[in-house]
Order: sequence, then C-alpha cells, then structure tokens
Amino acid sequence: MPNPSRCSGVFAPVVMPFGKDLSVDARRLIRQCKWLLTQNVGIAVFGTNSEANSLSVDEKIELLDHLIDAGIDPSRLMPGTGLCALPDTVRLTRHVAESGCAGALMLPPFYYKGVSDDGLYRSYAEVIERVASDRLKIYLYHIPPISQIAISIGLIERLINDFPDTVVGIKDSSGDWNNTKTMLEAGWGDFRIFAGSESFLLQTMRGGGAGCISATANINPAAIYDLYSNWQAPNADSKQQELMVLRDLVQNYPVIPALKSIVAHNSNDPDWLHVRPPLDTLDPSLRDELLAQLAAMEFHMEGLRDITL
Amino acid sequence: MPNPSRCSGVFAPVVMPFGKDLSVDARRLIRQCKWLLTQNVGIAVFGTNSEANSLSVDEKIELLDHLIDAGIDPSRLMPGTGLCALPDTVRLTRHVAESGCAGALMLPPFYYKGVSDDGLYRSYAEVIERVASDRLKIYLYHIPPISQIAISIGLIERLINDFPDTVVGIKDSSGDWNNTKTMLEAGWGDFRIFAGSESFLLQTMRGGGAGCISATANINPAAIYDLYSNWQAPNADSKQQELMVLRDLVQNYPVIPALKSIVAHNSNDPDWLHVRPPLDTLDPSLRDELLAQLAAMEFHMEGLRDITL
Repeated sequence: MPNPSRCSGVFAPVVMPFGKDLSVDARRLIRQCKWLLTQNVGIAVFGTNSEANSLSVDEKIELLDHLIDAGIDPSRLMPGTGLCALPDTVRLTRHVAESGCAGALMLPPFYYKGVSDDGLYRSYAEVIERVASDRLKIYLYHIPPISQIAISIGLIERLINDFPDTVVGIKDSSGDWNNTKTMLEAGWGDFRIFAGSESFLLQTMRGGGAGCISATANINPAAIYDLYSNWQAPNADSKQQELMVLRDLVQNYPVIPALKSIVAHNSNDPDWLHVRPPLDTLDPSLRDELLAQLAAMEFHMEGLRDITL
Repeated sequence: MPNPSRCSGVFAPVVMPFGKDLSVDARRLIRQCKWLLTQNVGIAVFGTNSEANSLSVDEKIELLDHLIDAGIDPSRLMPGTGLCALPDTVRLTRHVAESGCAGALMLPPFYYKGVSDDGLYRSYAEVIERVASDRLKIYLYHIPPISQIAISIGLIERLINDFPDTVVGIKDSSGDWNNTKTMLEAGWGDFRIFAGSESFLLQTMRGGGAGCISATANINPAAIYDLYSNWQAPNADSKQQELMVLRDLVQNYPVIPALKSIVAHNSNDPDWLHVRPPLDTLDPSLRDELLAQLAAMEFHMEGLRDITL
C-alpha cells in the first residue's frame, strides 16, 4: 500500500526572483509558490531551474523560513539540498527536515568528477547519519547532463537497502527514458520515481511512477497536473502531445531566462527578468519572439495576478 | 618592469587534513604549510587538490585565519575562492583580500553548464565590484576537465582590459599546451601565467610565464622549485624529465588520496589518509604498491618531520 508520507504529483522547481541588485526577493517567491499551489503543483524550490546553486546556504534557509512563515504547507515542499561540501549539505538538509518538508531533493556532490559509487554512497550516508532525523525523506536527483555525476542503479539499490525509510525516491533528469524504465521495472516497492520533465510523464505514470518535477510546471502547471491526474483517461496520449507544444517552444531558448521572461510578462513585473551570473537574461529580441509565439497560442498563466500577499 | 605585487614561483594546492570525523584540522594544515614554505613553495590553499569544494565557506575562512595567526605570511598565500554562488564567492574573496593574501585563485561558477562568456564575465565583474578592494588580485583558474567551464582567451582579454590592476594572472590546468602557448604569446604585459602542473613548467618559463601551481608540489616541492629557479641552466631539460618520473608515478593513482598517502607515510601520521566524500581513500594494496615504488626511488619529504608547532 502506498505510504502517504511519500510524495507524488507534479512539482515545480520554482524560478527565483531577484532584485536589480541580484538580492533574493522572498515576497515575490511566496507569491509564485502560492499561485503554483492553487494549480495543484508542489514546490520543489531550490532546484536547478531555481538557480539554487547560485544561492548561498544562508539565503536558502532564510527563504525557506519565509515560505513556511507565509503559510505554505511544508508537506507540499521538496527543497533541493545537495551541495558540493558535506557540511553545507548537512546544514541545509537538517533545516529542511526539521521544518517538516515533505522531502529533500538531493544532488550528489558535483565538483569532483569521475568519483566512485562508493564515494557517492558515503556522501549520502554521511548526510543521513549526521542529520539523524526520522523526518528526513530524500529524493535523489539524477541530472548527469548538468551535474556530470550519475547516480547509478547499483548505488540507488544500495541506498534503498541501507536507508529504506529515508531514501524514498528519485527525480530522473537524465533525459534517457531507458534509465527511467529500468528503475520503474526494478521492483523497488514504494520508491517514488519522478520524471525529470513532463516529456515522459505519461510513460512514467503507466510504468508505476509518481509524477514529474518539471521546469515547465512553472508556467503550465494546470495542464501538466491535468495529465498527471487523468493519465488513465482515453485522451491521455493527446494531452501528452499538447503538453509538448509549449515545452518544445520553451526548450528552444535558454530555459531559465525564458521561464523568467514568461513569468515577468504574465505577472507584469519586469524584475522577474533578473538572473544571477553566470546566467544571462534573454536577449530582448528573443524575448519578444518567444512572447509573440506564446500570444499566438493564446497562452496565459491563469490566476497569477490574483495572488495577493 | 615586473610588478612585485604580482605572484611568481611554485605554489602547492595544499592537501587538506581531516580528523576521523572528517572535521578540518588547522594544526596539521599549519604544519604542512610551514614545511612547504621551507621548500620555497607558496601556499595555494583551497585548490582542487585541497578538496576545497568539499569545505564550507566558514571552514575556509576559519582555516585561513588560523594560518595567518600561526605566522604564515599572507604574501605567500593564494587561496582558492571561486564558488558556485555569487554571495559565497564574494564573501570568501573579500576575506582573502582583506587578509592581505597575495592573490585569490578563482574558479568560474561551475554548476550551470554551457554558459556564455558574457555570463562568466559578469560573474567575475560582480565579485570584483562587490569586494571593491585595491588589495584584491585575481588569478583566474582554468580547469575545464573538472569545472567543465572554460575561461576563453576572449574572456581573459576582456577582464584584463576592464580590470587591469585586479585580474593579474591565470592558472592553466587545461592540460593543453597550445592553450598556455596562446596566452604566453598574447602580449598581455605583466599578466602572470602559471602552468597547472610542473609538466609544462620549463616550457612555460621559456615562454615568459610565472611558474606553476601543482598538486605534486605537495610532495616534491624542492625539486620543482629548483627547476623554476634554474630554468635557464644548461641541464634544465634533464631536470624537467626527472620531475616527470615522480609526477607520472603519482598520476597512475587517484591523485588526492595518493598525495595524502604519501604525506601520511612521510609524516608518520595515518590521519592524513582521510578524505571527505565523494572521494575515496586509496585502497591499502594500492597504497602499499605506491609507497614501495617511492621507496625504490629513495623518495622522501626532507625536513617534514622537523616542523614543530
């Protein structure tokens, strides 16, 4: 029987609002998260698309406190916590667990390359043993195109075996369906397997997966949630195809600045355009082109402007 | 005329001592740095081979303070300061500049991949503008095999042009002699070009470079310094070849645990074996094999045991 303390559904790695001086803006982040929750999408804040690795641990801890203080239910939160340095990962993960968050989405340490499965196992094990909390639920974050560090099937099995109540799921952002399929067929019980985007959402649900955690859920949450909750409906394949139209459009641009351009436009707030270096804002001509294509699709982010704080 | 405030010579990215509980050990780090200074080698602490990216910013700031409090001359220090998150890099770099260190060896932010030269330029420029110190001297750290982020010739030229008194050098750990050669021939005045290891030390010196910053300087400092200071001597080529015997031997093993095995053996202190995950200690059979080969070469780290604190 599925364990209700484990996550399922659609989560957004929430894009991160900055001021002109590149400081984080808790107020606009709260607004964005509250809107996503009205769309039935959970909050995977501090993901890759949140520019999480451009934020300090202190900034992340403060932002998380602001979100919870603003009334966001921690059971809907799956913050990213995996950093390069063990003490940083321990500190942030401990705070996430103690705050009652549903999960911690955990990158492996990603500076040193060519590391062994033993070394990665020890990284995760040290975090688990140092945080030492029953409330800690780890979702592994497999994103080799960016982290350059793969989480192998063997490593996952070893972690599930040794920490069955803590290592409870994975986000597969490999972009490789065969990898997701191998995990879905591995017989790992109630281990929660999330597609790394909505591209494989329907296939993941048909294979017994838990949902998806997707950049595009920042702008298209309702439609992605609709497929998630109606994946057994007869028109599910056409819904999957419809989702891909918007996704493919956004993927033609650098994704984070493209998402921020769309949020800026739909919330009528140009401060959403700011990104921290090393990322660049979208060139204005590309932004106009993107927004024109979205207008032609009659795209809008329903209810976003109705969220008041 | 060469600017005396700019660095030259041989620097070691000092290996980092941990306790059994993986905590940093300032006392043993001080000892190692003091020994390196007796060998005429400068202190590039918090480099890749220092496991710097497995340490928190707080740990690095505290260790740096300990080194300086212990009497290590900051003019011999070139700590690594480049991290993923802008506020972290600013905080550590500011501390390094305010401490009077000779330089800051600065990685580009390395999580997000495929970023533009504009984005990397803005990363460095924001750090320089936020630290806002005449004492800050940046040595760019080009190590694409690990960081996966290249610092292009065009980016270097733009930084030198806009920050001529701050961006004063580079460590080239590309492993690509043609890249170093291109820089040496670029006509960048007194910009200091360091080879990323002693492999290209002689070629770099002949091309007008400043020296090298090398992992192997942790264990073989005197011989590397000897070639650096006698690169114009008639026997320089044979000295270069001699250096490669030890280097090639160490490079047959995972370098950081191999260096630590050698330091542990030569200082008779097995606690030097500890590495933080995701790295692994060297398998004991490989360690024995490595040490046996060194014994056959009559290798020893002269004077290391004489350093008292």
